Order: sequence, then structure tokens, then C-alpha cells
Amino acid sequence: MANFDLMRQLARTKGGKIFLLVMDGLGGLPMTPNGLTELETAKTPNMDRLAKEGSLGATIPVRRGITPGSGPAHLGLFGYDPVEYQIGRGILSALGVGLDVKTGDVAARGNFCTVDENGIVTDRRAGRIATDKAMERVEILRQIQIPGVEVEVEIEKEYRFVVVMRGESLSHHLADTDPQVEGKKPFPVAPLQQDPTTARTVRLFEQWVDEAFKRLQGHEPANGVLLRGFATDPNLPKYNDVYKLNAACVAVYPMYKGVSQLVGMQIIDTQGLETPAEEFGKVAEIWKDFDFVFCHIKKTDSYAEDGKFDEKVHLIEQVDAALPTILDLKPDVVMITGDHSTPAKLKSHSWHPVPLLLWAPATHMPDHAEAFGERACYNGALGQLPAYDVMQLALAHALRLDKFGA
Amino acid sequence: MANFDLMRQLARTKGGKIFLLVMDGLGGLPMTPNGLTELETAKTPNMDRLAKEGSLGATIPVRRGITPGSGPAHLGLFGYDPVEYQIGRGILSALGVGLDVKTGDVAARGNFCTVDENGIVTDRRAGRIATDKAMERVEILRQIQIPGVEVEVEIEKEYRFVVVMRGESLSHHLADTDPQVEGKKPFPVAPLQQDPTTARTVRLFEQWVDEAFKRLQGHEPANGVLLRGFATDPNLPKYNDVYKLNAACVAVYPMYKGVSQLVGMQIIDTQGLETPAEEFGKVAEIWKDFDFVFCHIKKTDSYAEDGKFDEKVHLIEQVDAALPTILDLKPDVVMITGDHSTPAKLKSHSWHPVPLLLWAPATHMPDHAEAFGERACYNGALGQLPAYDVMQLALAHALRLDKFGA
Repeated sequence: MANFDLMRQLARTKGGKIFLLVMDGLGGLPMTPNGLTELETAKTPNMDRLAKEGSLGATIPVRRGITPGSGPAHLGLFGYDPVEYQIGRGILSALGVGLDVKTGDVAARGNFCTVDENGIVTDRRAGRIATDKAMERVEILRQIQIPGVEVEVEIEKEYRFVVVMRGESLSHHLADTDPQVEGKKPFPVAPLQQDPTTARTVRLFEQWVDEAFKRLQGHEPANGVLLRGFATDPNLPKYNDVYKLNAACVAVYPMYKGVSQLVGMQIIDTQGLETPAEEFGKVAEIWKDFDFVFCHIKKTDSYAEDGKFDEKVHLIEQVDAALPTILDLKPDVVMITGDHSTPAKLKSHSWHPVPLLLWAPATHMPDHAEAFGERACYNGALGQLPAYDVMQLALAHALRLDKFGA
Repeated sequence: MANFDLMRQLARTKGGKIFLLVMDGLGGLPMTPNGLTELETAKTPNMDRLAKEGSLGATIPVRRGITPGSGPAHLGLFGYDPVEYQIGRGILSALGVGLDVKTGDVAARGNFCTVDENGIVTDRRAGRIATDKAMERVEILRQIQIPGVEVEVEIEKEYRFVVVMRGESLSHHLADTDPQVEGKKPFPVAPLQQDPTTARTVRLFEQWVDEAFKRLQGHEPANGVLLRGFATDPNLPKYNDVYKLNAACVAVYPMYKGVSQLVGMQIIDTQGLETPAEEFGKVAEIWKDFDFVFCHIKKTDSYAEDGKFDEKVHLIEQVDAALPTILDLKPDVVMITGDHSTPAKLKSHSWHPVPLLLWAPATHMPDHAEAFGERACYNGALGQLPAYDVMQLALAHALRLDKFGA
């Protein structure tokens, strides 16, 4: 992973300004044997110009052959080896929806589900219940009182919610109750380690889950709950400490705000923003206040997960068309990449190295690339590199690192 | 870093002969967006032929994005991970000027400086006083007697000197007295850890520094001293042990001799040598006595630090023109590289990967390269690799490593 001791020792508080653009699931595959990928297909004159002037490379998000979820993929890109820093989904979701989670609090991701009269899960997603209908059930869950602790529940989206428990002596070492398949009962709340604190927390969550099932009776399709990803604040090293960066996150989806908050970025209010152009407009608005802005585009991934090659291409083109808004800010370093690959061909995240474009006119080394695309990236000047090295490169090109040794 | 346990296990005492040429700060950048680097600009028919026949690559001196000083950069190239082996500048300077430093002795780098009547540093380099004038002050410092220890002082160059303290129970865990900026008083000698040995060494160096200031009074511009890089012999694994190499160093500048001595190379007397051709002549003279010769060319870096693109180009051309002297020796392996990049455009060391040429006619894999240059190296057969892997490659191509396992 990024060597945080080295970073703390070498990072300067002054230097160039960095823009990191992440198109979620950017990397792709050709749909036909001799075809082009989504990125290679997209008409991207702005990114192609940056690629010609700057350096390309390809990142390995976790390890070769490992397909990451979005949480670990972003942590990696932010400099934290996701194998070393394994972070429960609960904390990411909780922070994403704006719940406060301190070290010692326990957050879990929840699903509304449908259970039959025998308690068997018949639909893990409660028929993908609409957000407003799910919100009615969240209101019911909020009525549950557990003596000795405070419990907060918040809707995430559709059937997904987050629950946070706060109090003295809690443990997050609990196993998921989500059986991951239909046709089974939910698992009981169970300890992942044997100690009094964990045993006590098991009993508290048991009470809460029992009460939830009781109160949701008759509220089909959402008449049950499944919990997973129990976690607390992992106390990650923060950007202002390790990188000496005053950093901001412009992201629309909750999880990305969560992981950005964990590394110490300031989360910018993005309510109402939808298009890449609108997100870039927000970046422009806050640009003067930060050394580093991370901007996240979600729908490249969403389209690819649905196998929508052309829609992913079109979205990349929209990002490219909006890019002048960013370039007008005169950033010293622009890095454009994805958190992982999501080839429309596979309809899922994948392990393929992710295209990376580094443009830093004062310091970049041009390579042979004529355009931004997977094949050019695989042979770029930056080579293939672990994602967790990207931030060190960004800082170097922003002239924000002192020399190591005499 | 190079796996020394593996090396000890596999290295043979016999095999081919290796020549390692380091042009300090070799890597560069184009001065204009579509331009060529220093190395790409230089007319280097000999190196281009070797590049065509052999393999190119690019080394990462420390970690991606990290700019090394020359000490750590050379250690890395010699196979020692510079992050693991952090070595004080004092020991490198002391060995470089021929002072003996054993484990337990303490060496520090010194600057002559100018202080005003209030003890404020007004010039950290004493007006870059000439070497012969500085030598007069060194003679004054040599008169200082500190009871219980022996102190040796030697001039390095201009305002730079080295001081070595020898005696029972000394500690090198001392903080720099150099405030690094003008307008401040020198820092007092201070301990970096709390123990009686360090406390005693603080008092001994305090006495020496106080006495130095007294005796230099009136000797403006060099009327004070600043110390930094307190260090002792770190007892590095030696080349004859780990690599089974009888190795020699042909370098003109003291620091490079210092780091070579630390890894167990024999330091060749280079007094009076100035040009690359003269250094190569010395290599030819000693060639038959060694398995491995490291030759260091300094001025590629010096010119680049001054922003002198054309002079750096010209020096690379001089090296190329002199190269037949080396090739006539029929080395089995020739490696040509830099310790780090120093682009004239940046006028400083940088983090960019460093061009590497490997020529070993019996074993090398040719790639597509037509000439020796950054872009060809970034896409060469050796890929991008940590500098500390270079020695393993050199040994392999010299057929000096046994097979690992049956």
C-alpha cells in the first residue's frame, strides 16, 4: 500500500492542486473478438488530447485476478491496501446516508425481505420495494426501543437501510443474518469472537431483530429484515495527516461519500445533481477551497452491470463533453480512472486492470498514446501499477513531496 | 528489496563479468510538449546499438512518486531497499572522504556557515567558501580536543566538511543542528532518544560545537558550523557475502565512494580523473581484477540540476563516445542506467522511472527498441521494475545464480 510513514515524512502542505475523476467500473471489454471496449468506442476528444499530452497506465485494484467491490476498490485508489484495511459495508453505508458512527458504535447494512409463515425468506429484496414504501417501514423500525442503547435507522435506497447502535461496550464482531439465498430462514445474530462484549451485543441485536419481525408482521412484501456487514469506524489514517491534503468529495451515491469521509475528505452536498456536467459544475464551485477534489461518476458502472454497452459509451462521452469545465479551473494534476472494471460483456465487476490517465503539464512524461483506451493504457508510460500507488504519483506530480534522503 | 537470503543461497563464486554504468540523474523530460528528453536527444550510436541488441526497462528508484537523494538511490540500485535501509548522510560523507567509521563511531556532515553578532545564521553555506579557504578552517577545528573521545575532521568540498567522533559508548541518535533556513540560530545538539549513552554524546558534541564557534570567531564568512546526518556504520550485508562478487567502484565524487564502500566494494583511486573517457580508462586498468565494476558519472546530474539541457545531452554523448573502451574489455553483462531522474526541465531530482539498458549477448532477450531513450525503456522487455531488482538481473545474465529448487 501507499507507504503512509513515508508520506507523513515527505508530504508538503503546499503545492499543486489535484483533480481525481473516477468513472465507476470504467474498464471494459470488447463485445466481439476484434471489437473495441466501451472506452475505446466512446468519442472522447478532450480525454484523448490529455492522453496524447500526458501519461497512461493501468491500475490493479486489489491484486491480479481479484475483483473488488466498490468499497475496497475506492479505498485502494485512495492509497489504502484493501487487503490490509478490510472495512465492513455497514460503516460505509451509514456514513453515506449521513449517520454518525464513532469508534465503538456498530453499523450494519439492512435489507427488507419477504418471509413466509414459517419464517423462510422468499425474497431477499422484498420485491425491490420502492424507496417511499420502504421509508414507511423504516418509521416502524424507528419505534423499537432497546434498553441501554440508542438505535438509529435510516433508509439507503429501495429495500436497503442502515442501522446504527450506540452505547457502552459494543462489539462489531457479529456474523451476517442474511443467508444470501432464498428458501432459508435468516441466520440468528451470532458472535464472530468469544468475549463478554460481543455476547452482550449479540443479545442486543437479537432483541432488535425479534422486535423488527414482530412489528413488520403484515407489512408484506417487507415483513422481515436481514443484516450484514457489521462494522465500526476503523479509524483510518486521514488525508490531511498522511498526504497533507485538504480534500473534498463530490459524489452522488451514499457509499462513495462514506468511504471518502472515512479517509478524511470533506463531503460536498450534491443533492439534486444528476449529470456529469452538474457534478463538474459543483467541483468548479468549491475548487478554490481545496487542494484535492475527488469526483465520482456512478452510472458507467450501473449501465455496465445491466449489460448496456452503448449507454456506458454514451455516458463516457457525456463526461468527456463536460470536461472543459474542469480544465478551465487549471488543475495542476488531472487523474482520470475507474475504481475497477465493469465490462458490459460480463454484466459485473471484474479484475481487469483499469485505465488510468495522468495529465500534469509541468511534470508528466508523454508516451506513445494517441487516445484514452485500455490497450493504450496497458502500454503506457506508467505501466501497470497497484491502485494504491496512484495517490503517491498524484502528489509527486503536484510537487507536494519532499526528496527522500540526501 | 533484493532477496539477500536467496542470493546467499544461489550466488556462485564464478561466472561472467559485469559492468554497471550509472549516469547520475540520467532520466529526463522533454522541454516542450512534443519534444525529446535529454537521452532521446543525445546522439548515442554505441548505446543505441546495445539497446537494439539487448533489453530495455525502467527502474523505480524507491517507490512510485518518491524522489530520492543520491545516497538512497544508489543503495536501491545496489539491491538494498532504501526505505528499509535508511542511512544517515554523515556516514556516506565520511567514508567518501576516506575517514574510517566503525560501528559505534559517530559521523556527521558539517557546513561552514556565517553567523551575525547575535548568533543568527545569515548564510548557511558561508558564501560557498572555496575549498582551500575552508581547509584553513578545518585546520582550526582539528585543534579542538574533547576529553575521552577522538575527533577527526576532513574537508569534503567548499563549505562542506565531515566530523567523526570515536570512543566508548557513543550514540548517533542526535538531531541536526542545521536549522535549514537562514535568519535563525543553529539548533542546539539534541537527543533523538532518551538514554544515558545518547545524553553523553549530546554533551560531547555540544562541547565540540561550542569550541568550534569560539575558535572560528573572526573567521568570516566561515565563522560557524552546522551539523546534520549523524550516523554510524549500519553494517550492511556485503557484496562478497550476498552476491559472491569481488566488486570495485570507480567514482570521482566522495559520496558515491562512501555508499560503495558500505556495500563492500573496493574503492579505486580516481584522483585526477575528470572525463568519462578517463574514468573508463581506469575501469580498463583494473578490469581483470574484479567480477563487477560500478562506474559513476556525476555531471549528467549536475548539469540537469542547473537546468542545462544541452550540456547534459553533450555529456551523455561523451559517455557514448568513450564506451568502446569498455566494450573492448568484452564484459559479459553491461547495464547502463541512472540512480534517479534529474530532468533539466525541473532542475532537480525527480521520481520518474529511470532508463535501464541491459546488454548480455549470451542471454539477453531483444525487444523492439531502436535506440536508448525513456519512451523505449518504458515499453522495453524488462518492463518497469524496482531498482533493487537490477542486481539480481545482472547476476542472472552473468550466469552467476544457481537454479532455485529441483
